[in-house]
Amino acid sequence: MSNIAVFPGSFDPFTIGHESIVRRALPMFDHIVIMIGYNSDKRTFFPLEKKVEWIKKVFCDTPKVSVETHEGLTVDFCRKVKSNHILRGLRTAADFEYERAIAQVNKKMEDHLETVFLLTTPEHTPVTSTIVRDILRHNGDISMFLPSNITMQDLASYVEKNH
Amino acid sequence: MSNIAVFPGSFDPFTIGHESIVRRALPMFDHIVIMIGYNSDKRTFFPLEKKVEWIKKVFCDTPKVSVETHEGLTVDFCRKVKSNHILRGLRTAADFEYERAIAQVNKKMEDHLETVFLLTTPEHTPVTSTIVRDILRHNGDISMFLPSNITMQDLASYVEKNH
Amino acid sequence: MSNIAVFPGSFDPFTIGHESIVRRALPMFDHIVIMIGYNSDKRTFFPLEKKVEWIKKVFCDTPKVSVETHEGLTVDFCRKVKSNHILRGLRTAADFEYERAIAQVNKKMEDHLETVFLLTTPEHTPVTSTIVRDILRHNGDISMFLPSNITMQDLASYVEKNH
Amino acid sequence: MSNIAVFPGSFDPFTIGHESIVRRALPMFDHIVIMIGYNSDKRTFFPLEKKVEWIKKVFCDTPKVSVETHEGLTVDFCRKVKSNHILRGLRTAADFEYERAIAQVNKKMEDHLETVFLLTTPEHTPVTSTIVRDILRHNGDISMFLPSNITMQDLASYVEKNH
Amino acid sequence: MSNIAVFPGSFDPFTIGHESIVRRALPMFDHIVIMIGYNSDKRTFFPLEKKVEWIKKVFCDTPKVSVETHEGLTVDFCRKVKSNHILRGLRTAADFEYERAIAQVNKKMEDHLETVFLLTTPEHTPVTSTIVRDILRHNGDISMFLPSNITMQDLASYVEKNH
Amino acid sequence: MSNIAVFPGSFDPFTIGHESIVRRALPMFDHIVIMIGYNSDKRTFFPLEKKVEWIKKVFCDTPKVSVETHEGLTVDFCRKVKSNHILRGLRTAADFEYERAIAQVNKKMEDHLETVFLLTTPEHTPVTSTIVRDILRHNGDISMFLPSNITMQDLASYVEKNH
Repeated sequence: MSNIAVFPGSFDPFTIGHESIVRRALPMFDHIVIMIGYNSDKRTFFPLEKKVEWIKKVFCDTPKVSVETHEGLTVDFCRKVKSNHILRGLRTAADFEYERAIAQVNKKMEDHLETVFLLTTPEHTPVTSTIVRDILRHNGDISMFLPSNITMQDLASYVEKNH
Repeated sequence: MSNIAVFPGSFDPFTIGHESIVRRALPMFDHIVIMIGYNSDKRTFFPLEKKVEWIKKVFCDTPKVSVETHEGLTVDFCRKVKSNHILRGLRTAADFEYERAIAQVNKKMEDHLETVFLLTTPEHTPVTSTIVRDILRHNGDISMFLPSNITMQDLASYVEKNH
Repeated sequence: MSNIAVFPGSFDPFTIGHESIVRRALPMFDHIVIMIGYNSDKRTFFPLEKKVEWIKKVFCDTPKVSVETHEGLTVDFCRKVKSNHILRGLRTAADFEYERAIAQVNKKMEDHLETVFLLTTPEHTPVTSTIVRDILRHNGDISMFLPSNITMQDLASYVEKNH
Repeated sequence: MSNIAVFPGSFDPFTIGHESIVRRALPMFDHIVIMIGYNSDKRTFFPLEKKVEWIKKVFCDTPKVSVETHEGLTVDFCRKVKSNHILRGLRTAADFEYERAIAQVNKKMEDHLETVFLLTTPEHTPVTSTIVRDILRHNGDISMFLPSNITMQDLASYVEKNH
Repeated sequence: MSNIAVFPGSFDPFTIGHESIVRRALPMFDHIVIMIGYNSDKRTFFPLEKKVEWIKKVFCDTPKVSVETHEGLTVDFCRKVKSNHILRGLRTAADFEYERAIAQVNKKMEDHLETVFLLTTPEHTPVTSTIVRDILRHNGDISMFLPSNITMQDLASYVEKNH
Repeated sequence: MSNIAVFPGSFDPFTIGHESIVRRALPMFDHIVIMIGYNSDKRTFFPLEKKVEWIKKVFCDTPKVSVETHEGLTVDFCRKVKSNHILRGLRTAADFEYERAIAQVNKKMEDHLETVFLLTTPEHTPVTSTIVRDILRHNGDISMFLPSNITMQDLASYVEKNH
């Protein structure tokens, strides 16, 4: 069985911090599936199909990375793609407590499912999707928080729709 | 005056972690009142009367524990039932900061009111009502997070109503 | 160029903790602008014009403090009033993580913009606007959490409107 | 069996914060034993017999409180005095992590042994024995950090001996 | 190049928590080298050669795990064994801050060196080598904190030497 | 009275992180005194006179910064140089708890004494004097952690003396 990791998130939007985690984890795994979780009852800032498109663009030259969408529990998705590893980035001590609860509950539901953490690099640590949306909403410059082939223009048209 | 503790919460739902705190605190108090706080303007996942019913079932053989509902400040409820002790479970360092603010404000409003903390046991630490609802919403198995005489079937019928 | 600090917040409401931070920071700066941030899409508990009025009343004898409102990024406001310093109060370790992310992102957008932190004094540490609103909503006594010339009566009439 | 709590520590020295925890916990227990832990291989700042004397003086009018010394594991002392409760004060989130580890290990060694936490009051939160010793060493005024019937003179003569 | 991880520590002693991290990380790596760091100027509780012997015994049936000793920087050891991954267990939020500083400094010294974190399982979270030594020193039972084929007798003879 | 800040520390050694805090705080103050605290009973890694020399070299072109040594309480030094502000850098949430205790105790001893915090910049956050000494001890490259006009050669000769 090959060594597959699932990188779950809502990626609303996918940031330069998310990209860094995936690229740095690549040597450890045969394949990484970026799982965009969604909830058909809940609205997100950016549409699901756009999120898929943007992330695919970021990893267009990296065949070991694929992108999928999933509604439901992450453990169910891991079973489906036969993965025993959830990949997560840790930014702060506050993150840590939350991530630990989720990881321990996932392990309780599926004993061989391990969550593997990499630290965000110091310069990406303050970057969260929430902060990026907030800056975008007020016409601030977010280009430095995005992967190099996602442009601010890609995201900007969705601001108006969120008023 | 007897030694009464109030264990306040929204208990949406009451978990195996809540049960453990109450049972472990029993030797210290003459009586523990589980106070289900509610806000008539806010919707919860499970209906108030069901929460009362489930918690009563858990402690049906424990006369030192009773269940009441309350809308308003916890300090007012403590005055009503003549209790000088609020009982709380502490799970994580993040919890701690929040609990401390609440406990200190309560003490400011009523000087002889002490908040007493027990730690959640390690295996219950990741279990929160939020996580339980989230798993339930996606048809995951939550039976291991519930007190032994609350069944998943008791809770499952409310998932649909929350869509 | 004079040494101006911006003290941003939603101040919903302005508490005795906020007042303490501003007064203790005064010796360090030539002027402090209290910036009430708002978002025309989002409702707050107290109306913007009332917040301005209450804060002006608190500092009516302190010409080095002024009050303004702003919709948008704090960095843009700092540019407008030619300030290189954002003033913030730190209450807890949990606060710290959040404040650090915001401060670092602000510095990324405007390199010479420094965020300066003072600690809340121990007796004000548990006081947050959220807790004050919550107590007020349940008719509790909040006078001890307000600056001395804001009265509970000033705030109480807005409770009903928030049901 | 009566309801006894053990309040363990090195109390080097006993501070106003320690006193506050014991007094506030009294209504919950029939008796509180203050256990001064020591290690015959390790030197402390103040001699053991002085620590006993000072704490006895603080609680001379409180028959529900007694003072004992113990070398060894706290769980063994609890067995000896037939106590099922360890009382501890929580100051900060950093404290919390350390206290949790100790409490969980104690519970692993003796399952019915519960650690009960009270929060230090905000004005006592920064006071630790380490800080008190440090101020004393530099001839600073520590009287405000000591219980009202321990004087600075009681402690001061030991500074020289610690050079 | 094969996928090797280094698991560094002083392992004074190696606990059931350490063992769990190594076993759970095995599926991700081709080989894990347990690196016992030492400092010839500093005394440890257990002798280096005993630590090697005990850890080898734990993994005697696991050829993918080897044990080595090293004096110096972990980055230098990683270069020597051609590893790009440092494996660490995370217990608490307090751990996290410390581990992050070390991991970021290591990455600054060797850019392709990633630190990979697994969480300790809830039941092992309170177990640290310091606590184990402390219990052992007072003749407490530590067998539940040790890997199944290290016995308390193996360790107990070193207590006397540390007085 | 002019606006003076004291920046206290043991600076064993002074790092690029310390330098950054001082430079970024300069616009807020008329003068910053770097106070190297020492304790004649305790040995440090680098000699006091060398620390003074190195820090003076860093700020040789910055007349608003001076360097002094002090044995005793920081509050006493602040009184001596007529400063009402202690300047400190905050690195992590763990730092925060410690810094808060010290700052609150200082304020208790001298009510008008405020501690002002700046955040370390993300790239300097992991750099502590302890880590720098540890790398130096093992012949690692620390030049990237030092202010630009302190060289590794300046520090290296003291390693041998600390064995």
